[in-house]
Amino acid sequence: MFEFRIDATSDAARAGTLILPHGTVTTPVFMPVGTQATVRTLSPADLETVGAQIVLANTYHLHVRPGEDVIEQLGGLHKFMAWDRPLLTDSGGFQVFSLEGFRRVDEEGVEFQSHVDGGRRMLTPERVVEIQAKLGADIAMAFDHVVPGGADESTARDALERTLRWLGRCKKRHNELAELRHDGTTARRHDGVQRADVPTWNQTLWPIIQGGTLPALRTECLDRIMELGPWTGIAIGGLSVGEPKDKMYATVEVLEERLPPALPRYLMGVGFPADLVAAVERGVDLFDCVAPTRGGRNGSAFTPEGTLNIRNAAFRTDEAPLDPTCDCETCTTYSRGYLRHLFAAGELLGLRLLSLHNVRYLIRLAEDMRAAIQRGDFAAWADEWRRRYQHTGVA
Amino acid sequence: MFEFRIDATSDAARAGTLILPHGTVTTPVFMPVGTQATVRTLSPADLETVGAQIVLANTYHLHVRPGEDVIEQLGGLHKFMAWDRPLLTDSGGFQVFSLEGFRRVDEEGVEFQSHVDGGRRMLTPERVVEIQAKLGADIAMAFDHVVPGGADESTARDALERTLRWLGRCKKRHNELAELRHDGTTARRHDGVQRADVPTWNQTLWPIIQGGTLPALRTECLDRIMELGPWTGIAIGGLSVGEPKDKMYATVEVLEERLPPALPRYLMGVGFPADLVAAVERGVDLFDCVAPTRGGRNGSAFTPEGTLNIRNAAFRTDEAPLDPTCDCETCTTYSRGYLRHLFAAGELLGLRLLSLHNVRYLIRLAEDMRAAIQRGDFAAWADEWRRRYQHTGVA
Repeated sequence: MFEFRIDATSDAARAGTLILPHGTVTTPVFMPVGTQATVRTLSPADLETVGAQIVLANTYHLHVRPGEDVIEQLGGLHKFMAWDRPLLTDSGGFQVFSLEGFRRVDEEGVEFQSHVDGGRRMLTPERVVEIQAKLGADIAMAFDHVVPGGADESTARDALERTLRWLGRCKKRHNELAELRHDGTTARRHDGVQRADVPTWNQTLWPIIQGGTLPALRTECLDRIMELGPWTGIAIGGLSVGEPKDKMYATVEVLEERLPPALPRYLMGVGFPADLVAAVERGVDLFDCVAPTRGGRNGSAFTPEGTLNIRNAAFRTDEAPLDPTCDCETCTTYSRGYLRHLFAAGELLGLRLLSLHNVRYLIRLAEDMRAAIQRGDFAAWADEWRRRYQHTGVA
Repeated sequence: MFEFRIDATSDAARAGTLILPHGTVTTPVFMPVGTQATVRTLSPADLETVGAQIVLANTYHLHVRPGEDVIEQLGGLHKFMAWDRPLLTDSGGFQVFSLEGFRRVDEEGVEFQSHVDGGRRMLTPERVVEIQAKLGADIAMAFDHVVPGGADESTARDALERTLRWLGRCKKRHNELAELRHDGTTARRHDGVQRADVPTWNQTLWPIIQGGTLPALRTECLDRIMELGPWTGIAIGGLSVGEPKDKMYATVEVLEERLPPALPRYLMGVGFPADLVAAVERGVDLFDCVAPTRGGRNGSAFTPEGTLNIRNAAFRTDEAPLDPTCDCETCTTYSRGYLRHLFAAGELLGLRLLSLHNVRYLIRLAEDMRAAIQRGDFAAWADEWRRRYQHTGVA
């Protein structure tokens, strides 16, 4: 359980296999975001159809509504949302630090105001681990202190130190819960893996590297996280939060040189198609982002040439599919003219059909990258991909 | 083509088979409403899954947006909305007479203001037939003058006379178009029906009986419509527009005695579950209504005991399915607790899942009625159904 195997590499790019309690995930992989225990507009059957292997849900949102106790009573997050493949929950750190309104951070944790009922609540490293244990995702994330993209060194240093102290508390609480839940057997086996004699729990905890866009802080954070190990995976947080793209890429590059190859690497909150390609090129394995569903609800669709907006009057009588290269239900069933009509008429089916396509697009992009890595020509594939994607300049 | 066969009767209730260019429809049948060329929140694949045999679309709405010419350019309504089973389009009469704002009726037709762009437009019997010909549904409806539920005799008489004059003009234009489109062959054959030597067109025109809730006007209207025939089906319009339920049932009852048994009978805009049962009991074959999708988007769900509203706090940790007797995706996949969460959290998936269930509920109700008619015990089935449906008093 929680094993990661590298199947192929092409320069820094990696194709791997991650074994989780609810199934096996091949990487690189894009995780659709199911903020409130649903990937907005899509059903679990839709997600299976587009090849989703793992879905992310937000601990903060589920804690404030409906509450982790409700979800636990209804059988845990997998059963609640009727998704039997792997799940990852974030820690709520990103949400509480990006919330508008009242927020107070101290060593104990973060006090904040619920966006649902306005009530004051407290998240601590221990609480966050306990909430995620009740939710029961395959992968839980440690509680981290996220700072804005342009944070200065002392702010970034301060958040880094707190993130590391909180990581120790998260790990301690996670281990205590694992002891309580230890049943001495491995309930599920995948791909011939059978370790029934090993104590186990069906959730693992991943740490998050912080440190802003300061290379020295990032590498120090990574080193100190590894001292607190062992870990089954590791995340890069605090990127895609307003910093320039080249800073984001440079940060990932610096880390790539020191990240233990055996751990799967998750770049949080990324991204757009070009970001996925650049990050895989720099050794990243997992991604999540709301862009495909948020953009889809706004009429924006990913295509191999860049994004298009289906509301454009030019599509009024366009018989072509949204993306002629795509195999999703939207692209194999409907014309751009019909999709434009759905948006013009305010029909909810339009939001769903574009979300479905965009999620499929990113999943297929990850599949294409995996194939290129397995062929050993990722660099050439990426150059060709970028030439085409940026060709029209509409991205 | 356009044949109707009675498979079984049980008192006045009938089980039949209607052969249309895009497929065979077994009756009684509930037609989901796809106002703007989409049954709100549902895809064609969803509709097939819940057993929809025929869908209704609104000529008025499609005329004002995107316009019948756009739909014709994109291959006609079936291809546009990716629905290859039978379609029925209404005439727009009901919409233009129930529109808020400017409306002027004269012998030529109705001038009205588009709800989309505010522009003045004119619908005439000829235009309505031409628009529906471009849309290309299997069944087109004649343009009728609808009056409110409480209309007095002179208003109802006036509307009836105009409806009959307009029917003559609709039929004349329909016949002209049929001549133009006559190709001497039957392109599609169903259930062994083959009449390749008979001139044909893949659209038929059905007349609409008006006359308010005045029995003498209703029967006169029916008789005079039959003189203008032959017809392949007939509709009862102007009901479910604010009149008391007993007046609606009495009107259907009066008509039932004189309606030619060989014609399929379509009760427009009806209805709620109890209305479907009462109307089938009185010899009706086809129905349409927005109640399942409109109610579904509002959290209201049909069950065998009556309706429930999923927003109710009582369902917060309810593990039971929405309707334990139902075979739809919603009821076989999710708990009431999860569905309530989707509504509380404002998630679009909730609207879709309740719409899906409600449409399935009415289709299954029609299927159950058909089975009872075929067993010959419809009256006993209906009594038992009503006893259960009204038992809790929450309907």
